[in-house]
Amino acid sequence: MSKTLIFGHKSPDTDTICSALVYADLKNTLGVEAQPARLGEINKETQFVLDYFGVEAPAYIENVDEDVDNVVLVDHNEFQQSVDNIHDVRITEVIDHHKVSNFETREPLYFRAEPVGCTATILNRMHKENGAILSRENAGLLLSAIISDTLLLKSPTCTAADTEAAHELAEIAGVNLETYGLDMLKAGADLSENSALDLVTMDAKEFTMGDKKVQIAQVNAVDTNQIYESQAAIEKEMEQIISDKDLALFLFVATDILENDSDVLALGNAKDNVEKAFDVSLDSSNRALLKGVVSRKKQIVTNLTDAFTK
Amino acid sequence: MSKTLIFGHKSPDTDTICSALVYADLKNTLGVEAQPARLGEINKETQFVLDYFGVEAPAYIENVDEDVDNVVLVDHNEFQQSVDNIHDVRITEVIDHHKVSNFETREPLYFRAEPVGCTATILNRMHKENGAILSRENAGLLLSAIISDTLLLKSPTCTAADTEAAHELAEIAGVNLETYGLDMLKAGADLSENSALDLVTMDAKEFTMGDKKVQIAQVNAVDTNQIYESQAAIEKEMEQIISDKDLALFLFVATDILENDSDVLALGNAKDNVEKAFDVSLDSSNRALLKGVVSRKKQIVTNLTDAFTK
Repeated sequence: MSKTLIFGHKSPDTDTICSALVYADLKNTLGVEAQPARLGEINKETQFVLDYFGVEAPAYIENVDEDVDNVVLVDHNEFQQSVDNIHDVRITEVIDHHKVSNFETREPLYFRAEPVGCTATILNRMHKENGAILSRENAGLLLSAIISDTLLLKSPTCTAADTEAAHELAEIAGVNLETYGLDMLKAGADLSENSALDLVTMDAKEFTMGDKKVQIAQVNAVDTNQIYESQAAIEKEMEQIISDKDLALFLFVATDILENDSDVLALGNAKDNVEKAFDVSLDSSNRALLKGVVSRKKQIVTNLTDAFTK
Repeated sequence: MSKTLIFGHKSPDTDTICSALVYADLKNTLGVEAQPARLGEINKETQFVLDYFGVEAPAYIENVDEDVDNVVLVDHNEFQQSVDNIHDVRITEVIDHHKVSNFETREPLYFRAEPVGCTATILNRMHKENGAILSRENAGLLLSAIISDTLLLKSPTCTAADTEAAHELAEIAGVNLETYGLDMLKAGADLSENSALDLVTMDAKEFTMGDKKVQIAQVNAVDTNQIYESQAAIEKEMEQIISDKDLALFLFVATDILENDSDVLALGNAKDNVEKAFDVSLDSSNRALLKGVVSRKKQIVTNLTDAFTK
């Protein structure tokens, strides 16, 4: 029997982990043997979700083993966000909600990207299309992914489809959307035990903009000032990564989940592009407040790409 | 109201033209104003289809006008097969059945690729998902696209989904699948009036393999020997295109639709890769018979890409 592995992006977030778990379950229900995997550490928010619904984290993998026949990517398609040996594997499916970039296959595949706020919303749809029933646990995982990606339905990335799915899933999961959602986001925003290195890597994604490499790390917080109490240590870790990866820009985004603003820190040769992209001035400590900006995908990556390419 | 343009690849074939027409119609039915377009001349096979069902060809465009808000690609995703100013447009949807390569967007989009034999099979599915009824004409167009891409359900690219869709659509279109299909293929295989330039450009696609540019042109014929009566003229046109486009390889594929074999002609510095890819020897006139090979996508592109990259 052929072996299928399902995983999301590096620096996994709740959507990446939950989508891999639930899609592997759906595959198994449909008679296709599939295993979920993860490419990095489980963050606090996701751990809260797994504990709440009593589900085990997928196994960590560093590379795809040679005995794996098929690879399914969820919640990402850009190769630099994927497993290191992505070029050597056979990708048969992609389920995603991001822009398409730096992705290619040698053969036709099932590629499904939809412009919604969360991969979990697409997976909820796929259960219906296949007449498959979601267990309470799986509904809880998908719900958590939507809450995480849309900041409790408040992000500009949130679509009517996400909102509808979230209410449906809360019902099946037997939780109160608001109460559960805020508890979950707060669990993720508890950064008291995180080192500076944790902060800059726990949800970091690398992008190619023009011909430059850009890394954007994002953390959610209840109090962003508290994070920047260790700004010197954060900068030191960022400088190291800039040098290791030859980045033109490293943007650290601290998002206030109550105010829905982001306090960003920009380092690297191309940091001026942040001023250009958001029409702000970086202060003497290389920081700026981006009012109303909470979505890396919809509000940060697109504007920054423009600044790099226009 | 925003303006949406729907088109398939350059050197349009029946699937590209019919999918653009039918998808524009579906969009309009769903309340989204959309116009179909084409990027090249209508070939004889497609003209037979349009005449048979009394449908007008989409308008020819050289570039996407500035007043177009959204672009929908059908039957292709690789930018080099698309409109010249593809980098300047906003792509909101892709409906395709090819491998994904050399495609990127700045924003999330609806990208739907399925590993089936024909874009029309996906469009047939989308009508059902949206509860939309196919007219006799549109069913005829989708059916013709499937017959064309699968060589009357005989190509190795043909899946169970294509076969099922073809029978369903033949019923709605009110035609006999076999009789109509063979008439249509023969109309396309009538190359008596085509110049050598026509033959090498009428269904030509460009690919990037490793770091090389490769063009593959395919014609269907009832008698491939007749085509090669003008081999000298064909070679002259190919040499010109190789030089103009700086191709490493130009592969001309003459496919016998009755025998289901292909007689190919390879020119360019990298023509040895054809021998490597198919384990054949090119004869003194740079030709080889590829037994059982009829599918550019499934049997030619993948093998050639391996030869270029491994």
